[in-house]
Amino acid sequence: MISAAIVGGTGYTGVELIRLLSAHPQVSIDLLTSRSEAGTRADEIFPSLRGVSDIVFSDLGDNTLATLQKCDVVFFATPHGVAMQQAEALTQAGVKVIDLAADFRLQSLTDFEQWYQQSHACPELLKTAVYGLPEVNRDKLASALVVGNPGCYPTTAILGLKPIIEAQNKQAQRLVEPRIVIDAKSGVSGAGRQAKLALNYAETTDNLKAYSVEGHRHLPEIEQGVAQLLDSQFTHRIRFLPHLVPMIRGMLSSIHMELTEAGAAIDWQHAFESVYASEPFIDVMPKGIYPDTRSVRASNRLRIAVHQDNERAELTVIVVQDNLVKGAAGQAVQNMNVMFGFDETMGLNFAPIVP
Amino acid sequence: MISAAIVGGTGYTGVELIRLLSAHPQVSIDLLTSRSEAGTRADEIFPSLRGVSDIVFSDLGDNTLATLQKCDVVFFATPHGVAMQQAEALTQAGVKVIDLAADFRLQSLTDFEQWYQQSHACPELLKTAVYGLPEVNRDKLASALVVGNPGCYPTTAILGLKPIIEAQNKQAQRLVEPRIVIDAKSGVSGAGRQAKLALNYAETTDNLKAYSVEGHRHLPEIEQGVAQLLDSQFTHRIRFLPHLVPMIRGMLSSIHMELTEAGAAIDWQHAFESVYASEPFIDVMPKGIYPDTRSVRASNRLRIAVHQDNERAELTVIVVQDNLVKGAAGQAVQNMNVMFGFDETMGLNFAPIVP
Amino acid sequence: MISAAIVGGTGYTGVELIRLLSAHPQVSIDLLTSRSEAGTRADEIFPSLRGVSDIVFSDLGDNTLATLQKCDVVFFATPHGVAMQQAEALTQAGVKVIDLAADFRLQSLTDFEQWYQQSHACPELLKTAVYGLPEVNRDKLASALVVGNPGCYPTTAILGLKPIIEAQNKQAQRLVEPRIVIDAKSGVSGAGRQAKLALNYAETTDNLKAYSVEGHRHLPEIEQGVAQLLDSQFTHRIRFLPHLVPMIRGMLSSIHMELTEAGAAIDWQHAFESVYASEPFIDVMPKGIYPDTRSVRASNRLRIAVHQDNERAELTVIVVQDNLVKGAAGQAVQNMNVMFGFDETMGLNFAPIVP
Amino acid sequence: MISAAIVGGTGYTGVELIRLLSAHPQVSIDLLTSRSEAGTRADEIFPSLRGVSDIVFSDLGDNTLATLQKCDVVFFATPHGVAMQQAEALTQAGVKVIDLAADFRLQSLTDFEQWYQQSHACPELLKTAVYGLPEVNRDKLASALVVGNPGCYPTTAILGLKPIIEAQNKQAQRLVEPRIVIDAKSGVSGAGRQAKLALNYAETTDNLKAYSVEGHRHLPEIEQGVAQLLDSQFTHRIRFLPHLVPMIRGMLSSIHMELTEAGAAIDWQHAFESVYASEPFIDVMPKGIYPDTRSVRASNRLRIAVHQDNERAELTVIVVQDNLVKGAAGQAVQNMNVMFGFDETMGLNFAPIVP
Repeated sequence: MISAAIVGGTGYTGVELIRLLSAHPQVSIDLLTSRSEAGTRADEIFPSLRGVSDIVFSDLGDNTLATLQKCDVVFFATPHGVAMQQAEALTQAGVKVIDLAADFRLQSLTDFEQWYQQSHACPELLKTAVYGLPEVNRDKLASALVVGNPGCYPTTAILGLKPIIEAQNKQAQRLVEPRIVIDAKSGVSGAGRQAKLALNYAETTDNLKAYSVEGHRHLPEIEQGVAQLLDSQFTHRIRFLPHLVPMIRGMLSSIHMELTEAGAAIDWQHAFESVYASEPFIDVMPKGIYPDTRSVRASNRLRIAVHQDNERAELTVIVVQDNLVKGAAGQAVQNMNVMFGFDETMGLNFAPIVP
Repeated sequence: MISAAIVGGTGYTGVELIRLLSAHPQVSIDLLTSRSEAGTRADEIFPSLRGVSDIVFSDLGDNTLATLQKCDVVFFATPHGVAMQQAEALTQAGVKVIDLAADFRLQSLTDFEQWYQQSHACPELLKTAVYGLPEVNRDKLASALVVGNPGCYPTTAILGLKPIIEAQNKQAQRLVEPRIVIDAKSGVSGAGRQAKLALNYAETTDNLKAYSVEGHRHLPEIEQGVAQLLDSQFTHRIRFLPHLVPMIRGMLSSIHMELTEAGAAIDWQHAFESVYASEPFIDVMPKGIYPDTRSVRASNRLRIAVHQDNERAELTVIVVQDNLVKGAAGQAVQNMNVMFGFDETMGLNFAPIVP
Repeated sequence: MISAAIVGGTGYTGVELIRLLSAHPQVSIDLLTSRSEAGTRADEIFPSLRGVSDIVFSDLGDNTLATLQKCDVVFFATPHGVAMQQAEALTQAGVKVIDLAADFRLQSLTDFEQWYQQSHACPELLKTAVYGLPEVNRDKLASALVVGNPGCYPTTAILGLKPIIEAQNKQAQRLVEPRIVIDAKSGVSGAGRQAKLALNYAETTDNLKAYSVEGHRHLPEIEQGVAQLLDSQFTHRIRFLPHLVPMIRGMLSSIHMELTEAGAAIDWQHAFESVYASEPFIDVMPKGIYPDTRSVRASNRLRIAVHQDNERAELTVIVVQDNLVKGAAGQAVQNMNVMFGFDETMGLNFAPIVP
Repeated sequence: MISAAIVGGTGYTGVELIRLLSAHPQVSIDLLTSRSEAGTRADEIFPSLRGVSDIVFSDLGDNTLATLQKCDVVFFATPHGVAMQQAEALTQAGVKVIDLAADFRLQSLTDFEQWYQQSHACPELLKTAVYGLPEVNRDKLASALVVGNPGCYPTTAILGLKPIIEAQNKQAQRLVEPRIVIDAKSGVSGAGRQAKLALNYAETTDNLKAYSVEGHRHLPEIEQGVAQLLDSQFTHRIRFLPHLVPMIRGMLSSIHMELTEAGAAIDWQHAFESVYASEPFIDVMPKGIYPDTRSVRASNRLRIAVHQDNERAELTVIVVQDNLVKGAAGQAVQNMNVMFGFDETMGLNFAPIVP
């Protein structure tokens, strides 16, 4: 049994973490902090937690750090820029840190500062932080002190591209053309639990839009993820375009590629199945079956379908996940499981909710 | 051609008014004011208006009143408490005022002050203001200077009860028992165009709740409407309970009554059809057919169904409308038509949008 | 570990049963039948089950009965009229039967035949069947052979009224007037997994309607439930009106009553809290807090709020549940737990999904 | 005043046609046919039409053709394969035909037969049929006898690509690379008014999926549209992938292209604005503003945004329309206006519905 703290549990990733950790057999949530809600029971803000958890938000003031230091792991479900203020003191006390915001995702300080418009509080720690995608970094995670939990879009993009990049590495030739289009779609919960006119029901329902058309923060994270998989000269130019879809949860990324002649010779269905054969949460759909987002709703699974049409030189990869689970809180718990040597699926083996 | 101004057109009733008045053959929108959006084109805030209207929000500062005084009619699509500040000066200049907020709905100062928590700025004017329900007050509206446009719920409630109250008046006996339950349901646009966590898509979708369970501001308005119809001693005790339904537009009120023996002798289907036979916007459904809210979506129609079961002594009246049209902006235009002697349906004769 | 069969698992209650029983520590789903889908894996129809269950639909033909007879419990997630064909043979073989349809809900043959338009296949068995509402019939369930799992609406209605009826019994006087209005609202999944124009997305979205206005099958079930609680002469006249709300899951019943003088003297908040104090799945909300349906989404909880206004003689009870869980499959599992002596919450202790 | 008939008006395009033509000042709907609904008033099926139109569905049997021949124009809002059975006889009688299905969209018989799996009933007429996209074929439409009203997706794709293809023609060089990705998203009404499990509310809500991943019937239509614009050797390879989005109306196509060096030298914002400067229904958004689908809801407008990033060699065109209006019935009325010499915007000048 480990002792966990959640800093800033008033958002959607926060309440999802509380839900998941409350049911985890090896975790006790011993601390939940929020400056704005200090003194309030979590189930007053989220009545769904009535009977599930009786934890109370605290604002420990000067003692926060000391109290957090007594935990085994601290999850930051805070805005960008909070975790990096406390990570150093925590790791020095032997506490592991999992940040669900972006403080430890981008290894490049320049990228971080450009896209998040702030300087980094602990660049040294950033160097040793691990990007928390277990299907890519499982080994490093086992000994990680600080984990940057991936963004939701990058999770779908990197896992959708990994078998392709790795095949190019192995074959030492281009299998898909350099240009890759990632046309991604997210449910509204991805924008967080905030009072914002653009997120008002009457503004988002029966409506669809592209956003961040000129550049989204998740692009450098996707580029970094692809670069880290790459051990060849075959770089890619990625066009990433996200859309806001009127649904609560769910994310679907359609990844469009053009096959080279060498790429057309590959059986990509088989390639994907091989790469992910032993992954507990990655499900490669049978050939010709394409997943919808609800097939993973409220679960930690991520499903991938591969469409290959050699005549048209098309390779399309479709990836779905629940943006709040595999795209956020579930992945954080999966990371924690790896970091503490628990079975990787512990506390995450629940079925999706359909309908 | 009359000259109209809209004060505060940045909300949902505001944009709906712009849509309706832009297409009205006898109206020119000459002024649109908003302090927060002064200088901005309306179609920047509502791109749906691109190509429809090129009007710009103004904040006339000290000249506002003078400019408003040049118009024939001023619509207030503002929060409660604004119209009553300017109504006197406007009417003195011969300008007619239609307030879509609550400043001129409640004739009782006490009620107003209790439910809206402010004192009234022009109690004298309130006495001559007309409650803008044309199907009840058509004659008074023709010469009204100030009109309080009804609340959305009261429109459904009063029009759903009118044939019953009038029948009781005529028969001089109770036809339904004193207790009336109005269980009402509204789409989210009724809560206005605001940045509010409780209205966030992810908070309201796939979700349903009762609200204002302990008392809603529209209750005294419904009670007043019923009292004004009454010329008998047969008063009623009304339980009004609203619910928030995950839909953009639409309102449905289910009015539950218990028939007295005398009431069971009435053919209520026929009674409703008679009362509303010549009303252009009130549609009494054929016996056994119950309207859904989309059957009036984006239109000024209000549909009513009557269910009578003498064996169980039940009388149920079901009323639907579009809360932003007949429940707000459309009714305001209908009132304007009556006030200026136009055909009552002018500019309002468009079909509902289905699907 | 008991052996369970699900007959007809292709509907929403079916897939929900598979989800719940797959995670139940004391149950093995050994048989899943469907004539139309025989030979198909369940996860082909419900991809959400990929990785959760690899069960295959069977149509055992002549052997169905023999195979079912080897199970400990058979759940019927079939249309009305199927369970009663097989229940006798199963119980004779010592197999317990839980019917999620209506075959064993109504004790009155006349009522059954009138409302379901068919004659009953095993009237003798009907006499010993238990109405599966554990909060009312827990003792009888412990030894039941056949359980009629309640309808979704009656679950909310009966549990919402139980503290009131029992208080009247105890005080031997009317605490609320005879007329009770139950204005109920359900999500669309309650209509089942069927290809039906009226359930098409574009027909139901941004739309609201009352249905079965002239009488719904759940009315006699509610009346029976109230009658069974009654041991006084204080009968009630119930008006039950359901509405179809554009949401997937969720049910909210608003129960409107008028307090008698004696009723006004009761502290109803306290009365409800007392009655349900030890119920694991019934949550009486704190005074002044009203539950929304998502607070129970995908969980077996049912939340109740009580509003009492003595001045207006109002008593309003608001009940929410997930229509597919506490209103169907979850309640069936709860019944099974009681019938087999398991902890009543076994396999049902998961948190609601929010957002 | 012309006399119009609608064959098969029971679908969503049918009811939309009735709505639009009922308000058209130069059209009288004199005939509405449906075999299945013969004898039924249209407003019984679509209560939204109560008070709008009192037309009755007829099944004229042997007289159908003779009666249709008395009209000036016949709209076919039928499944594919119906219009081509009657078009010849109608045009011989001097009646103009507008088919909203696919019978007259594809000029290539081979394409038609391959994608629609039937042979064509009047290949000769097909040769003279005009593809009903006024912004491309306005001149031909003026004298057309038979018009194939475009598919919804092709309308967005062809209008989104037209300025680019034309610029390539003019400059006689490639401005974008051959590969074009059209990632398109549609609301559920696009699938028609049918009883189909996959369209059930509980199946489509809070859900997103790609469909026709292996090839959609609108692809050859898009390819044909692009080919017709082309007068150079610079052909394109188009990847078209549609998605089903949980909204009633609305379509958004994201068109992803890679700029050549020559293409980067073009000011595409300006190019689009020039091409569409005088089009009444095409709205090129200001630079940096991207349209959402509701900005055109229930209107005949189509809005286009252009994103150009020379550094990344990206050109992205985003197109939105209401799939039932500019994507179907509105475009049909626009075509009719051109064919009969009416003002092209007649009857189509209504504002979008927001919210």
